[in-house]
Amino acid sequence: MAGNSIGQHFRVTTFGESHGIALGCIIDGCPSGLEIDEEKIQKDLDRRRPGSSRYTTARRESDSVKILSGVFEGKTTGTSIGLLIENTDQRSKDYSAISQLFRPGHADYTYHQKYGIRDYRGGGRSSARETAMRVAAGAIAKAYLKAQLGIEIHGYLSQLGPIKAQKIDWQQIEQNPFFFPDADGLDALDAFMRDLKKQGDSIGAKVSVCAKHVPVGLGEPVFDRLDADIAHALMSINAVKAVSIGDGFDVVNQHGSEHRDALTPQGFASNHAGGVLGGISSGQDIIAHIALKPTSSITVPGQTINIDGQSTEVVTKGRHDPCVGIRAVPIAEAMLAIVLMDHYLRHRGQNMDVHTKTPFLA
Amino acid sequence: MAGNSIGQHFRVTTFGESHGIALGCIIDGCPSGLEIDEEKIQKDLDRRRPGSSRYTTARRESDSVKILSGVFEGKTTGTSIGLLIENTDQRSKDYSAISQLFRPGHADYTYHQKYGIRDYRGGGRSSARETAMRVAAGAIAKAYLKAQLGIEIHGYLSQLGPIKAQKIDWQQIEQNPFFFPDADGLDALDAFMRDLKKQGDSIGAKVSVCAKHVPVGLGEPVFDRLDADIAHALMSINAVKAVSIGDGFDVVNQHGSEHRDALTPQGFASNHAGGVLGGISSGQDIIAHIALKPTSSITVPGQTINIDGQSTEVVTKGRHDPCVGIRAVPIAEAMLAIVLMDHYLRHRGQNMDVHTKTPFLA
Amino acid sequence: MAGNSIGQHFRVTTFGESHGIALGCIIDGCPSGLEIDEEKIQKDLDRRRPGSSRYTTARRESDSVKILSGVFEGKTTGTSIGLLIENTDQRSKDYSAISQLFRPGHADYTYHQKYGIRDYRGGGRSSARETAMRVAAGAIAKAYLKAQLGIEIHGYLSQLGPIKAQKIDWQQIEQNPFFFPDADGLDALDAFMRDLKKQGDSIGAKVSVCAKHVPVGLGEPVFDRLDADIAHALMSINAVKAVSIGDGFDVVNQHGSEHRDALTPQGFASNHAGGVLGGISSGQDIIAHIALKPTSSITVPGQTINIDGQSTEVVTKGRHDPCVGIRAVPIAEAMLAIVLMDHYLRHRGQNMDVHTKTPFLA
Amino acid sequence: MAGNSIGQHFRVTTFGESHGIALGCIIDGCPSGLEIDEEKIQKDLDRRRPGSSRYTTARRESDSVKILSGVFEGKTTGTSIGLLIENTDQRSKDYSAISQLFRPGHADYTYHQKYGIRDYRGGGRSSARETAMRVAAGAIAKAYLKAQLGIEIHGYLSQLGPIKAQKIDWQQIEQNPFFFPDADGLDALDAFMRDLKKQGDSIGAKVSVCAKHVPVGLGEPVFDRLDADIAHALMSINAVKAVSIGDGFDVVNQHGSEHRDALTPQGFASNHAGGVLGGISSGQDIIAHIALKPTSSITVPGQTINIDGQSTEVVTKGRHDPCVGIRAVPIAEAMLAIVLMDHYLRHRGQNMDVHTKTPFLA
Repeated sequence: MAGNSIGQHFRVTTFGESHGIALGCIIDGCPSGLEIDEEKIQKDLDRRRPGSSRYTTARRESDSVKILSGVFEGKTTGTSIGLLIENTDQRSKDYSAISQLFRPGHADYTYHQKYGIRDYRGGGRSSARETAMRVAAGAIAKAYLKAQLGIEIHGYLSQLGPIKAQKIDWQQIEQNPFFFPDADGLDALDAFMRDLKKQGDSIGAKVSVCAKHVPVGLGEPVFDRLDADIAHALMSINAVKAVSIGDGFDVVNQHGSEHRDALTPQGFASNHAGGVLGGISSGQDIIAHIALKPTSSITVPGQTINIDGQSTEVVTKGRHDPCVGIRAVPIAEAMLAIVLMDHYLRHRGQNMDVHTKTPFLA
Repeated sequence: MAGNSIGQHFRVTTFGESHGIALGCIIDGCPSGLEIDEEKIQKDLDRRRPGSSRYTTARRESDSVKILSGVFEGKTTGTSIGLLIENTDQRSKDYSAISQLFRPGHADYTYHQKYGIRDYRGGGRSSARETAMRVAAGAIAKAYLKAQLGIEIHGYLSQLGPIKAQKIDWQQIEQNPFFFPDADGLDALDAFMRDLKKQGDSIGAKVSVCAKHVPVGLGEPVFDRLDADIAHALMSINAVKAVSIGDGFDVVNQHGSEHRDALTPQGFASNHAGGVLGGISSGQDIIAHIALKPTSSITVPGQTINIDGQSTEVVTKGRHDPCVGIRAVPIAEAMLAIVLMDHYLRHRGQNMDVHTKTPFLA
Repeated sequence: MAGNSIGQHFRVTTFGESHGIALGCIIDGCPSGLEIDEEKIQKDLDRRRPGSSRYTTARRESDSVKILSGVFEGKTTGTSIGLLIENTDQRSKDYSAISQLFRPGHADYTYHQKYGIRDYRGGGRSSARETAMRVAAGAIAKAYLKAQLGIEIHGYLSQLGPIKAQKIDWQQIEQNPFFFPDADGLDALDAFMRDLKKQGDSIGAKVSVCAKHVPVGLGEPVFDRLDADIAHALMSINAVKAVSIGDGFDVVNQHGSEHRDALTPQGFASNHAGGVLGGISSGQDIIAHIALKPTSSITVPGQTINIDGQSTEVVTKGRHDPCVGIRAVPIAEAMLAIVLMDHYLRHRGQNMDVHTKTPFLA
Repeated sequence: MAGNSIGQHFRVTTFGESHGIALGCIIDGCPSGLEIDEEKIQKDLDRRRPGSSRYTTARRESDSVKILSGVFEGKTTGTSIGLLIENTDQRSKDYSAISQLFRPGHADYTYHQKYGIRDYRGGGRSSARETAMRVAAGAIAKAYLKAQLGIEIHGYLSQLGPIKAQKIDWQQIEQNPFFFPDADGLDALDAFMRDLKKQGDSIGAKVSVCAKHVPVGLGEPVFDRLDADIAHALMSINAVKAVSIGDGFDVVNQHGSEHRDALTPQGFASNHAGGVLGGISSGQDIIAHIALKPTSSITVPGQTINIDGQSTEVVTKGRHDPCVGIRAVPIAEAMLAIVLMDHYLRHRGQNMDVHTKTPFLA
């Protein structure tokens, strides 16, 4: 089974290459009656859009989304939703040089070995350009989760290279081009990025994402636990090398007496768990973090081989993000939204019976 | 769709509660012709078995596995394989006290809220006891990967509380009850665990797992990337709170010029990526790490509520692992084996055509 | 992906060979709170059981089912349900003769070619013995559909060779060993079967199955239509060669003005459609029919080849049903129950929103 | 899980309404290296196209397909393939009258009840217009099966109302607008259709489809048998009410000694089974038949209710096929091709091991 779909009940299937005619997706399983239009989807797409700040790639794409089906008179009909974004700024010439070699740190080598053929223009299918459709599908999931359950999902850049956010000011995040929640760090970020550009290098980042007002009960043990599916969804984003929930790797040096979150009649006393217990949402905030590697598309020369196996050097020109982590914020939100929506529908199918009293309904 | 299955092509579905009659699984999709017997599976089960050392739970289970179908005259037939382990040491009485309250840090609360009913004996389905069947299924995957592709999978305890392995001595791992790869740390581990027992507390751990001789080409972008499916499988293990591939969270402060692994005619010059590029195996070692939280079953009293929402205190007696990370080593190996086998079969179905020349076959 | 599972939300996975140690299944996705016990399941198993009348195989199996997990204090817990039936009357010796040849009309040849190895004892996995687990799983689906929705599912033998039921007397069906709904035909059936036995031959049959009180709205177009999934489920039963819904092949010579069922304020005026319109249940009775081929296990000698490709003759001794269609009645009911339950849960997940008014809930 | 996908390994997901902006599909899992272009797909689309003869609907659609992704320099790359057909001749006005009532025999009522909202223009998603994408996807499957395995798939109209084909002349099928294999029946068909038009009525049909040169071994028992998946795929076509394999319902009155196909050193002596034994292809021709109901869109007035439940009458004007069976021929071929391709890839993933000798490879 090929892997261009995610979700069981709210199922998103995507297609499209970096320099192909168009990107698209089909969303199958969106309940009927949801109010949705292109404008609502476009808002999230604009947050991810290339060319939106000087800290991201210079490629200019309007990323205008069209709804082709599944919506009638402003509402979803319950049938499959087709979305389309046409590519406008492809510039195929930029990429012809890389057709005969494998850029280090990229998927060129593995795609070539797996398929025996690859669309080398801008990385083809392995380009982060495909994430546009994730954001589009995620916008629909977000709209549904908000309307149906009051769930809010927000992400932010928690660290870029050595610069960490010291506080989380939710208002600040959308005020700066870094999605950084700590205004005090903005000057440092700006200076760091300017230096990086001079060096022709790139940098890693940590992105965090949080879902508020998630009901208790989402997640399907023992394999499709909510946290396992979040890990899958977030790790599937280009450049992600690690995923953690709640305290993440800090738990390695925690004691049980410290880690376990006490329950009180007023609710949980802490949230080390990150909102998931036994693979099922606990009603607390879902908190996840991801690490994004520095992009390998840099002007610093790199050692590699060509398709005949001979040693060569590569310098990646073209238009690239010096920190792919920045634009990953709306993508991470989208992936979390897709997982939560999928699990909400899965749970609802499984547990709403008249002959028992499922607390979920209370 | 409920979540007790993992894998698409090599599909493992499990059942069984901590104190039920038996645990079992069905493995669907194992190719025919593989030599397998109960003894081979038992070997891995014995590594995970409770009661095997004084650092783990005192519950005694022989964990004797029976093959009920799918194997004929010592070889798999291509039909579904049924495996069964009968529970022998249930001691239901130990657990009756917890039927009316939710142990903090456990899945009691979330199972109760999700299903409206729960088997409270020993945690029921949420007990780590279900991982026995993961290890059994993983043993078959390991045997296949070894026979068909020469793949070797080994895990180890890389950190327990503050004690980190300073070196990886592969020979050492199976020589000590901690699966610890650094003989110099064994005394410290022993002392640490003794103290912990006195305190009645528990501790977190980091487990690492490595697969050698993996062919290039496994993984199905863009969602079912190999690393995304590894993240899913490892995060689905009880108590896991984080998963990383290769350099993991260290990439946050790496530059592109440092992180990208150079290709040379002799192979890759480094392995920051952990064996996966663009979601597809690169032919290098697959390296993954997980963080396991400290178990919440401790004798230190904890604050909680009962099923009527009233405040109460809980002291978990009974037989528990002070560090669940130790026995997680064979489980992590099993999950990685299941994912690799599944992806090998998926890839093989997708890409072995006579009219093209897929390098995989070379 | 291997094929031993059926259903998405209510997912049944089976294992077991005709002469193996045991048959079993895992039911994943059964909602919590359903009252179920072994006795309830046994009742349907007894209807399918071999050796229950002189018109069916003489093999004696008690087919005693054990519930191994997923049920606690008489109710389902929402976790996976393991069921087991141990084989008791295997008599492996009967079958050794067929290990070196392919019985015509059987799966011997195709299993051998597909897997390169086969359990030849009693047909191994291809034996109709595996249908016992279908009936067991179906009994749980039936119990749920009855408790939750009031759905009743009943099957009957509508034709055996040339003998057709002239009327459907629902009371009569369980009164005779043929599941035949027309008492006037019983003598003819008895005489026909006696002759058949003398000839050492077998006969085909037509089985019909009907579900009453099915709510409107089940089915997921455009591919997973309710009728398409019913066709899949029924065609997956051993020996079935055709499936029809409502008027079936009779529609070929019907006019639109005759076929379409008029709607009136009191409901539909007729039911040519068999309860499905556009792949979605209409609220009318679901009516399906299947054709079962005559078994190929007969004492009339047959032409075939051995595993070396040489011509030979085969006479199947042993204990076989002269009309496999008879015992197919409870199996067909079970499969219809599994499909309806699966689609009910799927529909419920998809369409029960607070922000719209889905008639299903009314 | 919603139902707009078919296939596991070769997975086709479609979207689009009769009068929406466009129809589209994503094909996930097509192996790399297959030569494909829009022209090849268009050929099959033109066979299904509306407005191509006076015996079918007068709606004029060019049905021009565009490949949006997954093909590079004339070959598939192994990534997901996006296909698009824009609707050009929508004429929404024709359909406004039916927005307030349920046409009998149509999906209006069931869609309304299931989703609480429906796109009533031309039947919306329930229109047979969605089958265009099935044909497009099927064309790719056909091309692959031909190139990789030499498989040929051909369908024909075997009966229309009372007129049956008396012989199968494969050359004749594409020579007449009925896909009828018997030139002697063409005059009768023409006369019958002319009468039908005068009456403003419609007629049912039987369509047959045959695949030649299918290798032994396709099909995944016990549930995903090849015949079960063919039944699912064919029953999912609009208006289909019955599916049979080989002798189909005729087996009801056959004896085992007559039905079972003898094996000889030169191959099977007959093909009552229709190419499938035990759910696995036998290497013989796969033969399937379907019954298509007469369309309910006729000018003969019909009794129905409006959305308020009141009695009313409906006369369907607009442009409709008097026999939807005719254009179903290429659709049935496409569905069979999709199933065979999917099962070929599934089988290949499961059974091609170096440590055993699977005859499939021989």
